[in-house]
This record gives sequence, structure tokens and C-alpha cells, in this order.
Amino acid sequence: MICRRAATIKSFIVMDVLERAQELEREGHDVVHLEVGEPDFDTPEPIVEAGIEALRRGETHYTHSLGIQELREAICRYYEEEYGVKGIDPDQVVVTSGSSPAFLMIFGAVLEIGDEIIMSDPTYPCYPNFARFVHAEPVFVKIYEEDGFQFRPEDVRKNISRRTKAVMINSPANPTGHLLDVERIEALVDTGLWLFSDEIYHGLVYGGQKAHSVLEFTDRCFVWNGFSKLYAMTGWRLGYVIVPKEFIRPIQSMAQNFFISANSAAQHAALVALTDSRVQKAVDRMVGLYDERRRFMVSRLREIGFGIAHEPQGAFYIFANCRRFSHDSYKLAFDILENAHVGVTPGIDFGANGEGFIRFSYANSINRIAEGLNRIERYLLASRF
Amino acid sequence: MICRRAATIKSFIVMDVLERAQELEREGHDVVHLEVGEPDFDTPEPIVEAGIEALRRGETHYTHSLGIQELREAICRYYEEEYGVKGIDPDQVVVTSGSSPAFLMIFGAVLEIGDEIIMSDPTYPCYPNFARFVHAEPVFVKIYEEDGFQFRPEDVRKNISRRTKAVMINSPANPTGHLLDVERIEALVDTGLWLFSDEIYHGLVYGGQKAHSVLEFTDRCFVWNGFSKLYAMTGWRLGYVIVPKEFIRPIQSMAQNFFISANSAAQHAALVALTDSRVQKAVDRMVGLYDERRRFMVSRLREIGFGIAHEPQGAFYIFANCRRFSHDSYKLAFDILENAHVGVTPGIDFGANGEGFIRFSYANSINRIAEGLNRIERYLLASRF
Repeated sequence: MICRRAATIKSFIVMDVLERAQELEREGHDVVHLEVGEPDFDTPEPIVEAGIEALRRGETHYTHSLGIQELREAICRYYEEEYGVKGIDPDQVVVTSGSSPAFLMIFGAVLEIGDEIIMSDPTYPCYPNFARFVHAEPVFVKIYEEDGFQFRPEDVRKNISRRTKAVMINSPANPTGHLLDVERIEALVDTGLWLFSDEIYHGLVYGGQKAHSVLEFTDRCFVWNGFSKLYAMTGWRLGYVIVPKEFIRPIQSMAQNFFISANSAAQHAALVALTDSRVQKAVDRMVGLYDERRRFMVSRLREIGFGIAHEPQGAFYIFANCRRFSHDSYKLAFDILENAHVGVTPGIDFGANGEGFIRFSYANSINRIAEGLNRIERYLLASRF
Repeated sequence: MICRRAATIKSFIVMDVLERAQELEREGHDVVHLEVGEPDFDTPEPIVEAGIEALRRGETHYTHSLGIQELREAICRYYEEEYGVKGIDPDQVVVTSGSSPAFLMIFGAVLEIGDEIIMSDPTYPCYPNFARFVHAEPVFVKIYEEDGFQFRPEDVRKNISRRTKAVMINSPANPTGHLLDVERIEALVDTGLWLFSDEIYHGLVYGGQKAHSVLEFTDRCFVWNGFSKLYAMTGWRLGYVIVPKEFIRPIQSMAQNFFISANSAAQHAALVALTDSRVQKAVDRMVGLYDERRRFMVSRLREIGFGIAHEPQGAFYIFANCRRFSHDSYKLAFDILENAHVGVTPGIDFGANGEGFIRFSYANSINRIAEGLNRIERYLLASRF
């Protein structure tokens, strides 16, 4: 029998959507995928070439358990150049096989049994699962479309108990695509809680905005980042977490035990992602395309009748109010999939307060996005919503 | 502050040995490494080429959360051809970034808080750490050199309590290099406990022996394996766990949350490892060299005065009795490192009952092994042990 700890971890609805979409495809239907959380771009060529070169050089052995020194130094320089954060020691950077296992490790390193961690509702559904796996309690604080889905710091304060140890933030956020502004970050720092900051969508920010790292504001934080989203490197499985200095030694022991090291060739490829100007050009091009799709999608979704109170400025998601059509996001998502052959993610996948919303991903070409939204529009009109 | 769960996870002594060895090297000393648990060979060429081809084809995206279908099917065929185990469903195979994270996942899936899991002493020190991380209790059962470091099933039975859920086996074993014989596997199956079987050293077996998979004897088991050791693919970080059918769905949910998927190119490379006859030739060559080193090392260690009650038949380790020289394996290992410039691992790193032993790895060339053992011999003679 699966144990209680593991039984709390449910499959994501988005995976059910994807599985059903793939069934439809096997039956010969064309499905437009607006449910996926993965860049549609291939990894930029100089990164791929660096990975190939590393394999040819025989970089097929374990690396240092924290990751290769050059990569960790490059990550420190990146945080200095991007955010003006000086003095990160390369030993504070722990390179892992994607950022996901690094969440598991840090939640396990910081949260005692029964500790509470504050999260937004809606939120990325892995966060509460990581917490529950280590017998900590996620405490959900609602966020609202009228605030651009940002935490209300006074609501966070109201939910602090003597067991609260941390607050989880994610800016730009999955599923909302919104950023947390400086005043709110500062207010969260002022709570004295540990800030757990998932910065995986940094760099994917549009409309002249820029995401701030929590490291600009406090050392009392853990920062996750990686190469999957910005560099279209999901399949390389390479992420990292920046930990406070006093955690280096115990977390290195955990990394040795749980992971030994990350993929060697992928680390050499990631080094090139951070240091090669050709990669920056490829990233700029991708960011330009995401922004174009974002603006198109916001405008079309509004035309169709979805509610977007504030334009999302980051990641590649739009969390749109669907209450004009249905208060049951699960049913609406599957109705759209079955009838219009477009995959979308029901808001309920991200928490009870995500009900009444649909997450649309624009990690797809503008033509496919246009096609998908046309189909949804036709379906909704025909259904006389 | 690091939490209690994490504070129990200590750094391995072998890492301290390695760090000190590297310091000596930076000071200009030549150090012979007999402490490492990693093949000295590079990955066979056809595997590397397959990884490169995969990257060129753009295999840089997430895969199925359980791993690519072709690889999981090839793993099922491998267990059928090697062990005669039929009927493993490819969905029972969960491909992960090395086998280490798969341990964390399965320990977390099966063991409730306070459950007990029986392990040998000495043992691979990660196993108790995985157990403690999920608040389970490792219960140690001593194994003895006169039995070839095999479990005494009657001792296992004596340690079963009402909280005992599983017994951890590892054959061929780290640190002892010994195999578990069929009678003992059957006796362990008869306990009715879950068998947790780490089969990572399978294939690295010498002297006409062959390791048995526990899947030949029972379905009530979890089997870990991977590509790191047999195929010299440590840096690719690719392993897997075969789970009972009733665990597929919950464990897939865990894999989605904790890992998303394993490295895509590495999976395509691993497929070639299992299916290309040129790889089998390269493996045969490596196995032949390991065996040659093993026989040489056994004979030289005995000449020097180390005790080897039974010749180890697998992996690339010899766990040699050092009591003629010292009862303090930690001190002896560091004395040898400082004075003879040879890295070896103290037996105490593997449990209290490993005291009085030194683990020697023969994952190094025969010339370096010869040089290392000569240095140790000279040092021990000069010290008038």
C-alpha cells in the first residue's frame, strides 16, 4: 500500500487534459495545445553544441556534488549583473536535475513536521505537494484578479501562526503570469518569515517590466531558478537553488545523498547559456515572440468574453476569468477539449480559489494560438453561452 | 536553522577523504585513488554518439514522466532476457535522474512515519539516510566476513517488529562486493516483508557467478537499477526503479511532482546502451578488466596482510579486514592518505560493524592499483605494524 504521505499527492488535472488530448490525436483529431507549461522552442544552437562538445570531451562522469565550479560562478555573476546582488558564494549555489528536486530537498531541509508555509491560492500545485511530503502544512492565502493576483501582505500577516516558517513566492507566477511588486516583496520580507522564491520564469517578462529577485531585499531566502524556461532547456533537466551560507554544509550532504550530482554535459551546456552572446540574442528573439503572442492572446480572449482584469506581464500564461461561460472550470476545460479540440487547464488545478478561471499558455506559435482561440470562440458561440 | 530531519544526514567520510586527497594534489602530490565508487572508464562510444544524435534531433524537451516508452520497453526486455522475468509492464518502470532520487521517492511512497526497514551493517550509507529523511527507522542487522557479508536470514527474522515493512538488499553489494545467494534471497522473500533491491551493480559480476534479480522470486519488491556503473554513465544521471503494478499511478504522480521527467538525450543514449551489440562488447571488455584488477588486488592485499575471508565476486570493491594494522579504520585511512598518498575508505563509513575494515575500490587502472598497494605496503612496513 502507498503510504499516507504519498497518497496526498494527486495527479495534476493538466496531465489528464494532456492524456485525453493525446487520445484524441491518436484518433486522428488535430488538437491545439494551450495547456502546456513548456517552451515550444528548441534549445538555442550554441547551447546544444556545447552539450555535444562536452560529451565528445568525455564529460560523462560525476561532477562536484554542488555542480561544476565554473557554472556556479557564472550563476553568481548572473545574479550580480541582472539584479545587482553581490557576494553570493559559489558554494551557496546547488545545481540539480531541474529545479523540482531542489524544492523537495529544501522543503525537507527547512520545514519540521507540522511547520506551516504560506502559499497563494491559486498556486503552482507542486508547492503544496512538496510541503505535504515532508509533513509540513501549506496555508493558503487567496489572491485576487483585481490585485493582479498579487499577495495582499495584510492577508499573509493574518495567516501567520507560531508554526509558520516560510512564505512561498513565484514571480512571474504560474498560473497567473503576474509579477509581485517591490512594495509587496518588502512587506513580505518584513514578516520575518523565510522567503522561498521560485524565480524560474525570470527573464520572461514583457511590457518594459523586470522581475526582482528576493536576494535584492534579503538574505533570509532560498531562491530557485533554472534553465528550462528562459533557455528552452526543459529536457536537459538543469536547475539550481541558492541557499543561505549557514545551510551550505548540511544541504551539500543532502545533495550528495539524494542526487550525487547533476548531469555533467547539461552543466557545460548551461554554462554556455549564461555566457554566450549568441544565446542572449536567441533568448531576446524568443522573448519578443512570447510578448507578441501574449498581446494577441490577451486581446482575443477579451474579445471572446474572458475576463482579464490586469494584463499579465510574465511567464507564458494568462489566467482568464471564465465565469461568463461557466463556474465549473473543470467541466468547461473538458468541454472545450472534446468539442473544440483545444487543450486548456482548468483553474481549479491550481487551488480552490482558481475556480472560475482557465489557464491559457502561449508557449505555442501565434498561428496555432489564433486557430485555438477561433475554435473556442466558435464553440462558445454555438453553445449559446 | 536546518531542521531535525536534515540534521541527521551527515557527509560521507569518503567525501572527506576525497577532499583531503584533492588538497594534497593541489600541493603537488601524486595521489592514487582507491576510494572512489565510480568507473574509471569513459562511456562507450556508441552510447555517446546516441546522446549526440538525440541532441542534434532536438530531443531537448520534457519526456513522458515515467520515461520514453522505447527505453521502458527495452528495460522490460532486459529483465526478461537477463533473468527470465516476464510480464513487467513498461508502466512499472520509472526512469529517473540516476537511481538516487528514485530511492528518495520510493522510501517516501512506502514507509510511514515510524515504520522500520531492515538493512545490513555495513551498508551503503545513503540507505539509512533515505529512511531517516522520511521519518522511518533503519534497523541494522550485522553481516560478517565469514559469511561473505551475506544476511543471516535468522538474524533478519529476529529483528522484525510489527513496524517492520521492508528489507533493503544490495547484491552485488557496496561496500563488500559480495552477492546474496539464492537460498538467502528465498528466505528473505519468506519473511513477507517488501524487498527493496538495489541492483545497480548487476552485470559487474566475476568468476562465473551471476547475480539474481529479486523479481525472479517475488513481485512484492521494488527494484532499482541504472546505467551509471555497468555502462560507465555516472555523469548522465540515468537510473530507474521497477515498481509493483498497484503502485504505478501514485508513483507516477510523485514522479510528475518531484522530477517532471529525466534528461531526454540521456534516455535515448541509454536505449542504445541496452540494445546495441557494440555496447555489449565494450561492457564485456570493461568487465574483463575489472575482474583482472579484482584478482590482482585480492592477492596483493592478502600478501600485505589484509584479511579477505571470501573473495568478493561483484561490483568493484574489496572490503578487507585491517585489524592486523589497526582497529581504527578512520585513523588508518587518513594515515595511509597522509603518508602513502593513497585514498581508501574507512569501513566505519558504512556502519559501526564496518569498523576494522577498509574498502578498496578497483575502479582504477591496474598500474595505479599496483602503485597504490606498493605504497601502502611500504608505509605499513615502515610503521612496523
